[in-house]
Amino acid sequence: MNERTVFFLSDQTGVTAETLGHSLITQFSSHDFRHVTLPFIDSDGKAREAVQKIDESGASDRRRPIIFSTIVQPEFRKIVKEADGLHLDIFDVFLEPLEQELEQQPAYESGRAHGMSDIEAYMKRIEATNFALANDDGGISRNYDMADVILVGVSRSGKTPTCLYLALQYGVYAANYPLTEEDFESGKLPDFLLKLTHKLYGLTIAPDRLRQIRKERRALGKYSSAQQVRYELRESEKIFKRYGIPRVDTTEFSIEEISSRILDSTGVERRVRP
Amino acid sequence: MNERTVFFLSDQTGVTAETLGHSLITQFSSHDFRHVTLPFIDSDGKAREAVQKIDESGASDRRRPIIFSTIVQPEFRKIVKEADGLHLDIFDVFLEPLEQELEQQPAYESGRAHGMSDIEAYMKRIEATNFALANDDGGISRNYDMADVILVGVSRSGKTPTCLYLALQYGVYAANYPLTEEDFESGKLPDFLLKLTHKLYGLTIAPDRLRQIRKERRALGKYSSAQQVRYELRESEKIFKRYGIPRVDTTEFSIEEISSRILDSTGVERRVRP
Repeated sequence: MNERTVFFLSDQTGVTAETLGHSLITQFSSHDFRHVTLPFIDSDGKAREAVQKIDESGASDRRRPIIFSTIVQPEFRKIVKEADGLHLDIFDVFLEPLEQELEQQPAYESGRAHGMSDIEAYMKRIEATNFALANDDGGISRNYDMADVILVGVSRSGKTPTCLYLALQYGVYAANYPLTEEDFESGKLPDFLLKLTHKLYGLTIAPDRLRQIRKERRALGKYSSAQQVRYELRESEKIFKRYGIPRVDTTEFSIEEISSRILDSTGVERRVRP
Repeated sequence: MNERTVFFLSDQTGVTAETLGHSLITQFSSHDFRHVTLPFIDSDGKAREAVQKIDESGASDRRRPIIFSTIVQPEFRKIVKEADGLHLDIFDVFLEPLEQELEQQPAYESGRAHGMSDIEAYMKRIEATNFALANDDGGISRNYDMADVILVGVSRSGKTPTCLYLALQYGVYAANYPLTEEDFESGKLPDFLLKLTHKLYGLTIAPDRLRQIRKERRALGKYSSAQQVRYELRESEKIFKRYGIPRVDTTEFSIEEISSRILDSTGVERRVRP
């Protein structure tokens, strides 16, 4: 494997540089990339420190690093450019065409890049998170009426993390309902969900994957047995079909992808934007 | 305000296109941007659908839209380019320099861009999320020993969402401890935290902001009174100083920023990469 160090530079958290860089370097599979994020580069001193780290890394690797940068302020960008490496800077590339298109000078203000400090957006995300926490794995009908979407599936199909992600990322009110032994036996959903079937969204998962996940929790016993896992998945599929519940197979997807697919397929509106 | 429609196109979730685009357009404050995300463009049909939506939007706005695209596969990118708009495509711009630098052809595989389907990373995030849920707002010493970091602060200072974000995004084990009336009176932390002070991280917040947040929960009473809020914040500050606990003021920051600053300042290692 060819080894390379990749730096993600930012005057903020570095999340933009990381997501951008990650989507690009994963196209080059014969390389082994070492990731270094240098966030909050918001002074001359920190910019020079970054240059030093990049150059040291290049010297020890004997290959120049790759540098993804989302630093807004021109003075710090200028310093960082002194580092020896392949510089891929989104502001270099995209700011000029935007400036021409919009006929306005950019503000060059770094706080704006992740300006979620807006209290309204913050409150919406917190409220949605509290909603997800209060309506997690609850057999009782709590505030299901208030939910934008109610995820349904067997234990460990990914309901809780998906609900939390929908809340934190998008401010969406996501509740979840874990299918129970009783539901499997009756082949029916509990009464309190029947008037809410339009809000239901099913999570399915491949039996082998589910067993693997359950074994991490409880290695032995019925819970992670092949027979039980297959039974639950088969019965949950019947329930989804009976009520016409749309569903996504979570086996191959990340939490982000599952969340995004649910929004895309249900048309549920985000309350906040990333 | 000048109005413009901005499209975020992706063959995956669209998160990369959104974070990239957002960090750029927020530099142009005299415009009012309408955001449209078109995720999962993974067929000729969907690419053509996107073109139609973009062109319709341009016709109704009487201004061409701005298009941020992270579509990997060349055939779909080609179709999408037929839309009338300002195309800002990260693969167009950055793939060639990377190809030259790494001396390898890119894979052009779209699944890779957000390839979190790796079971190990998924499990780490889930385990960290379960840890955060089990160790949230707990007065009892549960698994604080296992925590990478323990957030300390008054009620509504942002502990719970930050813990959940650290877990979901980075797989970090984050617990939290809400300071109590008893702690304020004694000026001390409870015994079970004393051997863990090196893991503690304080969240502070401006009194006015805290009041505003608390009022959303309970409009009246002591909980959101100016006096109580000031008292709690003053006493918590004393406790932070007494034990030398590092802290971040969450007033102006988003959950992402708070999380990122905690990792940066503590040196806690992420267990997964975005």
